[in-house]
Amino acid sequence: MTINSTIQEMATAARDAAGKLVRISTNQKNAALLSIAAYLEKEAAFIKEENRKDLVKAEEIGISSAMLDRLTIKDTTLISMVDGLRDVEALKDPVGTMGPAWIRPNGLQIARMRIPLGVIGIIYESRPNVTVDATGLCLKSGNAVILRGGSEAFHSNQALAAIIDQALDHVGMPQNSVQVVPIRDREAVSMLLNQEEFVDLIIPRGGEGLIRFVVENSKIPVLKHYKGVCHVYVDADADLDMAQEISFNAKVQRPGVCNAMETLLVHHSAAESFLPAMAKRFTEAGVELRGCAKACRILSDVKEAQESDWAAEYLDLILTVKVVEDMDDAINHIARYASNHTDAIVTRDYDRARRFVREVDSSVVLVNASTRFNDGGQLGLGAEIGISTSKLHAFGPMGVEELTTTKFVVLGSGQIRE
Amino acid sequence: MTINSTIQEMATAARDAAGKLVRISTNQKNAALLSIAAYLEKEAAFIKEENRKDLVKAEEIGISSAMLDRLTIKDTTLISMVDGLRDVEALKDPVGTMGPAWIRPNGLQIARMRIPLGVIGIIYESRPNVTVDATGLCLKSGNAVILRGGSEAFHSNQALAAIIDQALDHVGMPQNSVQVVPIRDREAVSMLLNQEEFVDLIIPRGGEGLIRFVVENSKIPVLKHYKGVCHVYVDADADLDMAQEISFNAKVQRPGVCNAMETLLVHHSAAESFLPAMAKRFTEAGVELRGCAKACRILSDVKEAQESDWAAEYLDLILTVKVVEDMDDAINHIARYASNHTDAIVTRDYDRARRFVREVDSSVVLVNASTRFNDGGQLGLGAEIGISTSKLHAFGPMGVEELTTTKFVVLGSGQIRE
Repeated sequence: MTINSTIQEMATAARDAAGKLVRISTNQKNAALLSIAAYLEKEAAFIKEENRKDLVKAEEIGISSAMLDRLTIKDTTLISMVDGLRDVEALKDPVGTMGPAWIRPNGLQIARMRIPLGVIGIIYESRPNVTVDATGLCLKSGNAVILRGGSEAFHSNQALAAIIDQALDHVGMPQNSVQVVPIRDREAVSMLLNQEEFVDLIIPRGGEGLIRFVVENSKIPVLKHYKGVCHVYVDADADLDMAQEISFNAKVQRPGVCNAMETLLVHHSAAESFLPAMAKRFTEAGVELRGCAKACRILSDVKEAQESDWAAEYLDLILTVKVVEDMDDAINHIARYASNHTDAIVTRDYDRARRFVREVDSSVVLVNASTRFNDGGQLGLGAEIGISTSKLHAFGPMGVEELTTTKFVVLGSGQIRE
Repeated sequence: MTINSTIQEMATAARDAAGKLVRISTNQKNAALLSIAAYLEKEAAFIKEENRKDLVKAEEIGISSAMLDRLTIKDTTLISMVDGLRDVEALKDPVGTMGPAWIRPNGLQIARMRIPLGVIGIIYESRPNVTVDATGLCLKSGNAVILRGGSEAFHSNQALAAIIDQALDHVGMPQNSVQVVPIRDREAVSMLLNQEEFVDLIIPRGGEGLIRFVVENSKIPVLKHYKGVCHVYVDADADLDMAQEISFNAKVQRPGVCNAMETLLVHHSAAESFLPAMAKRFTEAGVELRGCAKACRILSDVKEAQESDWAAEYLDLILTVKVVEDMDDAINHIARYASNHTDAIVTRDYDRARRFVREVDSSVVLVNASTRFNDGGQLGLGAEIGISTSKLHAFGPMGVEELTTTKFVVLGSGQIRE
């Protein structure tokens, strides 16, 4: 069978499963999630054995130790997969819930009912845990899912697919509700991106290269973010101790993730008192600073930032620092260089807090809190399948509700149009 | 200047205007809508003069009388444009509204704030009233808009653009909030569809050919529906008088629109008593019936439908009729042939009403009411910019709220991630 016909068959089967999944109750979906969790625990040895094959191959090719780490399924990885499924099981089921109903003058009663999107395609890189996490979120939200993990995790993902299959079969879930693409060739991705008739949404997760490839080649809507160039703006009359804690946390607590701060903006009237102590703390933590001309005058041993630095997502212990004239200057800088991901203000001023919240065009805007809170779990969504900086549909972290949409339900008693 | 650079300049200018529009209050936006309405009334003679140029050209080419009718700006057309703007002015402004806020254990207060999408591109055919209607909805929802009407309405749209420009200037709205593409060449459409960096959403309005062209060529998300193949299912124990009124209304009241019924499904136990009288009424109204084998046995002078008939959007006085075994048969037929647009059941049975509502995958599902109610105005959204059968973002009629999305607002008091 060709790659094309395999993918086409998977897409058709997924559409068929999606049609059946709308008839499945919350109890059945929850039972399915717990069944997968139980099977994962039971088959731990098999999973680690298959994972070993991927690790041996990866070591042969000589991938980086960071990638090797992401690829490895340890006992703790398995525990967190299983815990994740149980967390999602405990979430409220959004499907079938209805918003407020209103009445039209002719007596029609109208409301929006939440429904699954249908078929979701997930394209991701080395972490095999995505296979399980995405399965949990998609099933809970009533969607069929086609998963395509990285070729370096091929055996791990096939093993997880086999276990998920058994677990779903055991509780009588519709066949092909969850499918893992059994093809290493990248052509499978291109083929999947062509199935606009059967697949409703593509979510790519991984590096900017993968995401750009998906966006360029997809005929299906894509929810994604390319990168997180996040800012903290320290306002004129900010509480400077709070500003220091927030800035330090935003940069240093976990520098390699998308919601870490990349640029610190400081109001000129606060710069002299704020920057020296802040810079000292950053330097002690191993952070390399790159400043604007004014910042460099205050911090004599900091080198000047290049134009390209302001748009960079370092994902590392590097930070650009800019002294701004006022909040307009800060907002304009964010509009120009940020990535609509996460931006924060530290202030005591009521009007400026309100203006910052309204005018900064980011999926999460924070007042007096660290950028690191842009995360489905931290914001109370329960779990997330990713963060979107696409303005349509879902903007920000996406939980189970963001894997659904709404239809209109109209209840009448014989109404016709005049 | 090349077409490409003109469109690129318009897109950049629109992005700039969008940045300013988030700072504009509801009062200012409402003043802008009323200003456009007043200018349209003042410049009625000029608009009709420019419209005349398009009509003369159209007559030379020899377009159909239906198209000529859509192209003509009559006094009543102007009145309905102006009334439309005043209706939109009276709607609630969705921008800046916030949903329920929740508190995290660490004290963070979180809510979703509704924000404009940014820049919207609208691509449409002959009706020049879309220029004004879309302007009203986009401005009310805080979006900048780029409008590209049909080349046959070129002078009319340029005249409307000039008037809108003056009207917005008069009340100090940001420049380039509303732009009409001043290029007849279709290449302008392709160029606009490439501006993914600056344009957030494309809405095509027109025939299926135009919409398919836009979807094929757009790098920007598109909200659209191709067609409306709408069904009415008359259940076993339906009130047959009600079923007849609803079916007749759904087919005959305005057959040329997307929410008109194209296929009537009848439960076999109701067919003998329902179909003869129904068919007689349809035939008297000039409706041509095409039936399945069973329907043809009951209605002796009805010809048999071809396979292609079941998926057809006639937009005309033609109707396919199918006798189904039960509701599953009806739901399966709808899943196979309908267009996710509008489908209705007529029933007295509680369980089947609930199941139909849940399992039929259409943007509007109705119980005991005509399909003709899938319309923003009829459903109480105030006004609509179109109907979406794309499952993402907005599914169904799109009012001002559907031209917005939400961002997360997080209010803290110094919280950092542990």
